Amino acid sequence: MKSFIEVPDDSDFSIYNLPYGIFSTDANSKHRIGVAIGELILDLTVVKHLYPTSVQNALTAEVLNPLMELGFDSWNVVRTKTQSLLLEGSELQGDSKLREQAFVKQSEAALHLPANIGDYTDFYSSIHHATNVGVMFRGKENALMPNWKHLPVGYHGRASSVVVSGTPIRRPLGQTLPVDGADPAFGPCRLFDFELEMAFFVGGPATQLGERVSVQEAAKRVFGFVLMNDWSARDIQKWEYVPLGPFTAKNLGTTISPWVVPVAALEPFLVDNFPQDPKPFPYLTHERKFNFNIQLEVDIKPPKGVSTTVCRSNYKNLYWTALQQIAHHTITGCNIKSGDLMASGTISGDASDSFGSMLELSWKGTKTVQLLGGETRKFLQDGDEVIIRGFSRGDFRVGFGECSGKVLPAIPFE
Amino acid sequence: MKSFIEVPDDSDFSIYNLPYGIFSTDANSKHRIGVAIGELILDLTVVKHLYPTSVQNALTAEVLNPLMELGFDSWNVVRTKTQSLLLEGSELQGDSKLREQAFVKQSEAALHLPANIGDYTDFYSSIHHATNVGVMFRGKENALMPNWKHLPVGYHGRASSVVVSGTPIRRPLGQTLPVDGADPAFGPCRLFDFELEMAFFVGGPATQLGERVSVQEAAKRVFGFVLMNDWSARDIQKWEYVPLGPFTAKNLGTTISPWVVPVAALEPFLVDNFPQDPKPFPYLTHERKFNFNIQLEVDIKPPKGVSTTVCRSNYKNLYWTALQQIAHHTITGCNIKSGDLMASGTISGDASDSFGSMLELSWKGTKTVQLLGGETRKFLQDGDEVIIRGFSRGDFRVGFGECSGKVLPAIPFE
Repeated sequence: MKSFIEVPDDSDFSIYNLPYGIFSTDANSKHRIGVAIGELILDLTVVKHLYPTSVQNALTAEVLNPLMELGFDSWNVVRTKTQSLLLEGSELQGDSKLREQAFVKQSEAALHLPANIGDYTDFYSSIHHATNVGVMFRGKENALMPNWKHLPVGYHGRASSVVVSGTPIRRPLGQTLPVDGADPAFGPCRLFDFELEMAFFVGGPATQLGERVSVQEAAKRVFGFVLMNDWSARDIQKWEYVPLGPFTAKNLGTTISPWVVPVAALEPFLVDNFPQDPKPFPYLTHERKFNFNIQLEVDIKPPKGVSTTVCRSNYKNLYWTALQQIAHHTITGCNIKSGDLMASGTISGDASDSFGSMLELSWKGTKTVQLLGGETRKFLQDGDEVIIRGFSRGDFRVGFGECSGKVLPAIPFE
Repeated sequence: MKSFIEVPDDSDFSIYNLPYGIFSTDANSKHRIGVAIGELILDLTVVKHLYPTSVQNALTAEVLNPLMELGFDSWNVVRTKTQSLLLEGSELQGDSKLREQAFVKQSEAALHLPANIGDYTDFYSSIHHATNVGVMFRGKENALMPNWKHLPVGYHGRASSVVVSGTPIRRPLGQTLPVDGADPAFGPCRLFDFELEMAFFVGGPATQLGERVSVQEAAKRVFGFVLMNDWSARDIQKWEYVPLGPFTAKNLGTTISPWVVPVAALEPFLVDNFPQDPKPFPYLTHERKFNFNIQLEVDIKPPKGVSTTVCRSNYKNLYWTALQQIAHHTITGCNIKSGDLMASGTISGDASDSFGSMLELSWKGTKTVQLLGGETRKFLQDGDEVIIRGFSRGDFRVGFGECSGKVLPAIPFE
């Protein structure tokens, strides 16, 4: 399969990928849906008339929600048509006037949040991450909480503070407890961290309150995946999170990559699900594979310095699948709708260079992480840029682009 | 002050109240903004031309978000005008044709969710409730967690599952741990509970990520209050909530009353803020009163039987004010927008008949709660209707109407 658009070998956006994003340009400030191909964006509003009428409205929306809502079968229709339009010898290639209008350089486009996110949920589904945190705070014997292998632990996050890659993130103020048993302190977060995550957008028609989505049906509910950095204020979190969970330590900003990679593009990279023992309850049991070999990297780029890759992990490290996450989320009848975002939790592997947070990489600040050029880190410093990348590679490459953000200094309280 | 609309003495909706709601009728299915007065609704779309042009668009919206977004000064403009239109001798009373079109009987209207709720946050701000739960689960010595008196503990909730009064609530399925240390079980929740809460809608222009709302500015950010029942699956919650907080135990439905009572209507009922010791950090310190004497009641009405009031509490029992809740929520730079909903947490008083949940009233199931007609309860049974009422009374009455919901039986898993 070859596109008439030139796609460099190391491009994330091959003809096999075709991720959706929302973009605008200086010449046209309207937010519109595009598909990334090589170094270009195919503007779907320009070619919408080539698609079946049933999907045309969704293709001209300012967010991906209507396309997400159309459902699984329509996603395949749109994807198949887009792929055919981009192939060598297509009607689009043959129509030079249309072709000229239909493409925008990625370098000349601004990318926006792909969807209106109704609700954002963050799971905690990497066994290595949960074990690491458990060992650090509760010791080896009690590392995993008793519930962890029985259900995909998760919590509701703040939807308003999810932002697109490139948005700077301000170091937050908050309360911390520098000395156990003493009085709390107030000021800028001192243990500012990233969390390497991936997240998926929910699709299909909205469910009603009281309705469940079975673990089988869930497969048609995953529209596509993005990279995520769930920025975390560790010292604030530690003081506030008992008994109701993380709150302000997590609502200071959550960054996602702009391109939503369809599940269909990831299917060539399906791998066995993570072995689960004990066997989960029937409502969480599925036979089909829904785990993916996606290589993940985190770079830290200090204000004066070069990027250092501090973590190499993989999506396949997740113990719980996205299908199990959806089934568990809705087992109570919780209603979901297109544009809901569900994240994996920090994705750590078992090797010490695969840990998906500074908390783990610096082992609670007891080790230093070496950067190229001589600097070291235990947690993030002002001006540091954190860049997450993810891609799958076999006979071809399907990647996610970048999910990046720079840490701005705290604004003092007056 | 007297309205030309007859308002019964015991009506929640006096000329001093004027709460906003979203309604429709059989004759006109469009969702529109109304103001409750006595047993009627003033349809603002019909009288919008009598208001300043700057607010007219917001008055014809299908949700309250645009009115909320206009901000504090506009809220006063609208309220003052509405009050003048409803007074004896007003231009509206004098225009018989307009008057006929402008009013709808509440009994003939369907009431809807008042706003699109972007994000929903639940605090935990009643000291009696937090103490009760603490004593039950950790003993008297460690009842309050060390952070509790330093910050308004809260967590992000599920916005999609907030529903309007009258919506039935399905008993959820989920995992529980019937015997400590044994294997978990799966099935219908057995300890289904209500939580007596109040909540406020955020108003004013959306803030940007990284921006804080000071505890002083917060006073112009509270649009109005509603009653809330934060239905809770206690057995599911107990098994799932460590370490990330309540998740599926709370996303099965949260009910709010349909009428949003403006803060201006509650000002006559301002009382001293709850004494705080230790003194909170400056970012949480305010001198102005923002605590209200609002009497709250919870009734349980079994399928065959009469209503029993099982709880009599008061909003003034809250330790943390709404202003402190907003300031804490945004101290990290978390962005807020109109339509965000922030809830108080369960409002319990210090007397045993003022506890705002069955968990407390039955003291973890160790006592029975007597209902009129001979039935007893420890937790809620299928078919039980829970009805929350709230009102302030001085020279006049300002009330919230009802927040009700009936428990439907669980649908078995197949």
